[in-house]
Amino acid sequence: MASTDRRRVLRWRDGVVDAGPDALAIEEPLEIEVDGVSVSTTMRTPGHDIELALGWLVAEGALTSIDDLVEAKECFEHVDDDPEQVRRIVQVTTRSKVPVEPRLHATSSACGVCGADLTAMTQRTCHWPLSEDVTTFDVASVLRQPEACLAAQRGFAASGGLHAAGIFTPGGELICLREDVGRHTAVDKVIGWALQEGMLPLRGHALQVSGRASAELVHKAVMAGVPLLAAVSAPSTLSVDLARESGLTLVGFVRDGSLNVYAGAERLDLSD
Amino acid sequence: MASTDRRRVLRWRDGVVDAGPDALAIEEPLEIEVDGVSVSTTMRTPGHDIELALGWLVAEGALTSIDDLVEAKECFEHVDDDPEQVRRIVQVTTRSKVPVEPRLHATSSACGVCGADLTAMTQRTCHWPLSEDVTTFDVASVLRQPEACLAAQRGFAASGGLHAAGIFTPGGELICLREDVGRHTAVDKVIGWALQEGMLPLRGHALQVSGRASAELVHKAVMAGVPLLAAVSAPSTLSVDLARESGLTLVGFVRDGSLNVYAGAERLDLSD
Repeated sequence: MASTDRRRVLRWRDGVVDAGPDALAIEEPLEIEVDGVSVSTTMRTPGHDIELALGWLVAEGALTSIDDLVEAKECFEHVDDDPEQVRRIVQVTTRSKVPVEPRLHATSSACGVCGADLTAMTQRTCHWPLSEDVTTFDVASVLRQPEACLAAQRGFAASGGLHAAGIFTPGGELICLREDVGRHTAVDKVIGWALQEGMLPLRGHALQVSGRASAELVHKAVMAGVPLLAAVSAPSTLSVDLARESGLTLVGFVRDGSLNVYAGAERLDLSD
Repeated sequence: MASTDRRRVLRWRDGVVDAGPDALAIEEPLEIEVDGVSVSTTMRTPGHDIELALGWLVAEGALTSIDDLVEAKECFEHVDDDPEQVRRIVQVTTRSKVPVEPRLHATSSACGVCGADLTAMTQRTCHWPLSEDVTTFDVASVLRQPEACLAAQRGFAASGGLHAAGIFTPGGELICLREDVGRHTAVDKVIGWALQEGMLPLRGHALQVSGRASAELVHKAVMAGVPLLAAVSAPSTLSVDLARESGLTLVGFVRDGSLNVYAGAERLDLSD
């Protein structure tokens, strides 16, 4: 099973724009059912889904050997009446006496609200359609963001183990920087700061994150009404799809004087 | 509030061992209560906890402006009768009409089972005490692990966005490699593979992961009975504490011919 899929990308380097397909890690939800009860939904890259479910149950203490297992099978269900949307499920039948506590919309590759249909959730609950945000960002400012964050990160210098999220003004100034062991909690902190400052929606601002851009981070950016999310590393397929459907400008691999634009390129002045 | 704390570490480089304190990112659970209901527990780095709770509620669609907020306050409760253990809680009172669905032991910086007291959970449910595993690992083998994983990662080369987990034999041979957008799901997959192969507990084996070593990954390693967890990047304070209490050998920053040993150094032949 493929672990990557292709999306179109604009690559900017030294003022030259190059367009083409890019291979991205696939991110999709998988539901785990144990003895007839749905116990967890996790974001994951497809492939080895039965192993994933069994390994997760080892960590839960519910499986210790293959003898605890009666059966594990993959199946899928159609979501509502949409033939293109399917729910992937691994159904595990055990002989285990260790109860597995259900996690409602719980486990995820990097977040909290995964397992819900993120796209539907974003569209249903978003108060500020990003299409109304007509800000133009210049590439030079976006390219400076990771360094500005790093310079402001007190904890990272000490530990090398902290993610950062930063909010930048339309003029490229860093106005809030927060650090956390989790990327999504660092983002929660800067958005909570913006709420307290009366700055939501964050029209015209940019959100910079260290590491990768998961679909969860795209969701959080959209919900805060910020029109541009930039990550130092790669997005996933779901990040790109959700950004496009939400009108978010999604930039990845902001490093070494170049960047990739995965969605909403119309907000970037690529002529720099 | 401090975002890092110190732990003792052994640094190995070119056969020379240097011992000293190391600054690590603090990882601790935070509970979020909304209008009297506990809705989420997330791992996070302490500091700006109210912002974190408010930002999380923005992404949930429950808060859109400061006017939705009546009050947000930090408090703590003692865990059982242990005066050293406290539960950190942010209590939010809102005027919001958007219901927040509780997530049982749900959100986390990188995982699924956070919010439970990981140490207690690990000790309560672990079937294979690691103290019985007397394997010796040589440093040269551990140093080769990240490169062996990278060479076997098909998806990463294409996307640059996939984490990896690999199981190595006592002889240093890579026997199972899985990729995923999430570190913890990649680890679930290799442990599920080991269960299917009848290899649990993974005595004498090493588990190598890309990226950082969160407490959740330490928990998963202990539950699978693997005596050594090695990460390319940093562990957190909770990772180190949990590894020490569980008898796991925890190695971090395995890169450029050097590594740091945070727990269980007695299993490593440091004379290489």
